Amino acid sequence: MGSPLVVDIHTHMYTPAYMSLLGSRKTVPYTYEPPSGPTRLIILSSDDDPSIPIEERGRPIDSSYLDIEVKLAFMRQHGINCSVVSLANPWLDFIEPEEAQSWAHRINDDLENACANMNNKADPESIKALHEKETLFAFGALPLTAPNTDVIVKEIQRVKTLPHMRGIVLGTSGMGKGLDDERLNPIWAALQDTDTLLFLHPHYGLPDEAFGGADATNRYGHVLPLALGFPLETTIAVTRMLLAGVFDRFPRLKILLAHSGGTLPFLAGRIESCIQHERKFVANGGDLPGPQRNVWDVLQTNIYLDAVVYGVPGLKAAVAASGNADRVLFGKVQRIFVIVSILTVSGTDHPFFPPLGDKKDGEWPSVTTNYKAIKEMFDGDTQAAHAVLGGNAARILKLK
Amino acid sequence: MGSPLVVDIHTHMYTPAYMSLLGSRKTVPYTYEPPSGPTRLIILSSDDDPSIPIEERGRPIDSSYLDIEVKLAFMRQHGINCSVVSLANPWLDFIEPEEAQSWAHRINDDLENACANMNNKADPESIKALHEKETLFAFGALPLTAPNTDVIVKEIQRVKTLPHMRGIVLGTSGMGKGLDDERLNPIWAALQDTDTLLFLHPHYGLPDEAFGGADATNRYGHVLPLALGFPLETTIAVTRMLLAGVFDRFPRLKILLAHSGGTLPFLAGRIESCIQHERKFVANGGDLPGPQRNVWDVLQTNIYLDAVVYGVPGLKAAVAASGNADRVLFGKVQRIFVIVSILTVSGTDHPFFPPLGDKKDGEWPSVTTNYKAIKEMFDGDTQAAHAVLGGNAARILKLK
Repeated sequence: MGSPLVVDIHTHMYTPAYMSLLGSRKTVPYTYEPPSGPTRLIILSSDDDPSIPIEERGRPIDSSYLDIEVKLAFMRQHGINCSVVSLANPWLDFIEPEEAQSWAHRINDDLENACANMNNKADPESIKALHEKETLFAFGALPLTAPNTDVIVKEIQRVKTLPHMRGIVLGTSGMGKGLDDERLNPIWAALQDTDTLLFLHPHYGLPDEAFGGADATNRYGHVLPLALGFPLETTIAVTRMLLAGVFDRFPRLKILLAHSGGTLPFLAGRIESCIQHERKFVANGGDLPGPQRNVWDVLQTNIYLDAVVYGVPGLKAAVAASGNADRVLFGKVQRIFVIVSILTVSGTDHPFFPPLGDKKDGEWPSVTTNYKAIKEMFDGDTQAAHAVLGGNAARILKLK
Repeated sequence: MGSPLVVDIHTHMYTPAYMSLLGSRKTVPYTYEPPSGPTRLIILSSDDDPSIPIEERGRPIDSSYLDIEVKLAFMRQHGINCSVVSLANPWLDFIEPEEAQSWAHRINDDLENACANMNNKADPESIKALHEKETLFAFGALPLTAPNTDVIVKEIQRVKTLPHMRGIVLGTSGMGKGLDDERLNPIWAALQDTDTLLFLHPHYGLPDEAFGGADATNRYGHVLPLALGFPLETTIAVTRMLLAGVFDRFPRLKILLAHSGGTLPFLAGRIESCIQHERKFVANGGDLPGPQRNVWDVLQTNIYLDAVVYGVPGLKAAVAASGNADRVLFGKVQRIFVIVSILTVSGTDHPFFPPLGDKKDGEWPSVTTNYKAIKEMFDGDTQAAHAVLGGNAARILKLK
C-alpha cells in the first residue's frame, strides 16, 4: 500500500490577523519591530526583561509562524500528508472581554479560509486525495474572556459549521481559574453536544519557585520550563478536571492532550491510588464526592494522546494507558495520534525545536525522533504503525 | 523454587531519637501531645494552620512510624522477606548546623542497631537466611546543614562502615539550593568513592501556585501535591543534576529514584530533545557546556528506579527507559527495584496509603496494586518478575 498516510495533529500557526493583534500591543504577548532585523515576539513575562535592550527581547520570528507555503514545504520534507493546525499559545487568553468575540470570529475564519485555500490548491475537485496532495484542517480558538459564556458556547457551535474545522484548541487556564472551574460547565456541555474534539495545550508552565527560583529556572535556558514545566501544566489541568468530576458530568467529552498527556500516562496509577486513599472523599468518609469514574476509564474513553514524547518509554506508557497493552496493536491504538511536527511557538523559542546551526535546512530531529520511536515501538506491526501515523487521526477527525 | 525473595527498598521509619527531636520542637516539623488522643505530627507548613485547633493539626501518628514489630507484621502480611528502611522525610534538613553531626550519628546508629537487633532475632547465626526469616537493612541520613562539607563527607564514610547500612537517603534540596549546587561536589565524590547508593526522595513538592493557588491545591485533599507535586519534585531535582553535569563529573554515581523516577522515564525523551535544541549550550553556539552524556546513557548507567508507580503503563516506561525494551527481561531489568510498600510518612498522611475504613486490617491496596502491575508486566516471565521483586535488590545492595 506504499507509504502511509501521515497526519500531523499538533502543529501551530499565527494567522495574519493574530500577528496584527500582537503588533498593536505593548504588554505581553506583543511583537516589536526593531529598526533593523526581523520582528521580535515577546510571549512570556520572562521575555519582557527591561535589562535586555528591547530589540533583543523575546525572539525573532520568521515566516514559518504564518506562511502556509513554509508549512507546506515542511510537510513535504517530512512526508506529512495532512496537518491539523491550531493557533499557537497563548491563543485569545489575554484579549479584552469586549473584543473577544470579534477576534475569535476573525481568527477562526482566517484559519478556515487558509485551509480552504490550500485544499483547493491541492485538489480543486475535493479534499478526497489525502494520499496524493497535502491538505490542511484546523482547530479553532475560543473567546474565553468574553463577558458571558453564551459567547463562548456560540463560537463552539459556529466553529462546528466551518467545513475545515476539526475541533477547538484550549489552554489550561480556562476562564482564568483552571479547568475545574464550574463556570466552564456550559463549555463542556457545548463541546460534548456538538461532538467537538478539544485539544488541550500548555502555555503557562510552572512558577519559577518549582525549579528553585528564577535564577535556577533560567540557568539552563528553556530546558526546565519546556521539558518539565509544560508537561506538568497539562497533567495538572486534566487531573483537576478529573477530580472535579468533569468527566462524570460530561462522559462523552473528547480531549486530545498535547505531548502525550504531559505525564498523565505515567502518573495515572499514582493519581488513582491517591484518589483511592484520600480521606476528603465520600468513599473514605469525607464530605467531597470525588471522581466517580477512575482514571483508567477516563483515559480509555475520553482522552486521546498525541505521540510527541520523543522516545519509546513514553510511547509505551501512552499506548498502555490507553488500553490493555496486549490489545493496543489491534484496537486501542486509535487513541494515539501522531504528532510529527512541533512547529509550535509555545512561548519559548523561535519556531520551536528547529534544526540548529549548519543543519538548519535539513530534516528536523524533533520530528524524526518521534518517527523513530513509532517505528521501534511497533516493529513489524505495520498496521499499528500506520494507524498511529495517520489512520487514527483520519478516522477520528473525519478527514476524508 | 517456591515463592520469590521480596525486598522492599522504599519503606520508611522514624527512629525513637528522631521522635524525641520532633517532640522538642515548636516549628515545622514538630510533634504535639494533645491532652487526649495520639501524638500529632505537623510536618508541612500547610499542616501548621493557626485556624485549626492545635490538637487537630497535622495527623495522628501511630506505632507503624517507629515500631519494628509493626513493620515486621506488615512485611509478613505482604510476603516481604527483607526491608531496606530509610528515615522518613524531611530527614535532617531542618537541623541547626551545630547539631547536625551529632543527630546524624545518633539517627544512623539507631537505624544500624534496629537492623542488627531484628536480624539477630531472625537468625542468631547470621543474616544468610533471607528466604526464611525477615531481615532489615537501612539507608542512612546526612547532616546536610553542618557548618562544613567535611562533616557530611565523614558521615558518608562512617555509614559505609556500619554493617547493615546499604546507602544514603537524600531529599531534593541538598544543602538548601537544589542538587545542581556546586557545593555538593565533595558529597558526590564521597558517594562515588565509597560506592554508596543514594536514594533520592521528594518532600517539598511544588509551590501552591503550580496547582492554581492554595485553595485549588487543597481542594482535593492531598491528591494534587502527592500525586503530581512529589513526582515532579524528584524529576526536577535529577534533571538539574543532569544539566549541571553532575553525571559527567561523577560517572560512577549510583542513584535510586523514588516513585520510579517521578516522571523521568516518561519525560526523558523530551528532556533530551530540549537539551539538543538549547541555544545556551556550546553544541548550539552558546556559552554553557551543557551535559556531555545523554539522558538515556545516564538512565542506563547511573540510575535505578523503584517500581512504586501503581500500574503497567508507568512500569513499562520505567523498564524501557532503563534499557532496550527487547532486552529488559534478560538484562536490563536489574535497574528496577521493587517497592512493595509505601509505609512512608512523606509529609501528608498518617502512614501513607494505608487501607481505610473497614478494610483497615486487610492487605494494603497500595502494595497489592504494585504487585499486580509487576505480575501483569512480566506475565509468563517468572525470572524477570522475581528479579524485580527482590533478586535485583539483593544482588545490587549485597543483601546476602
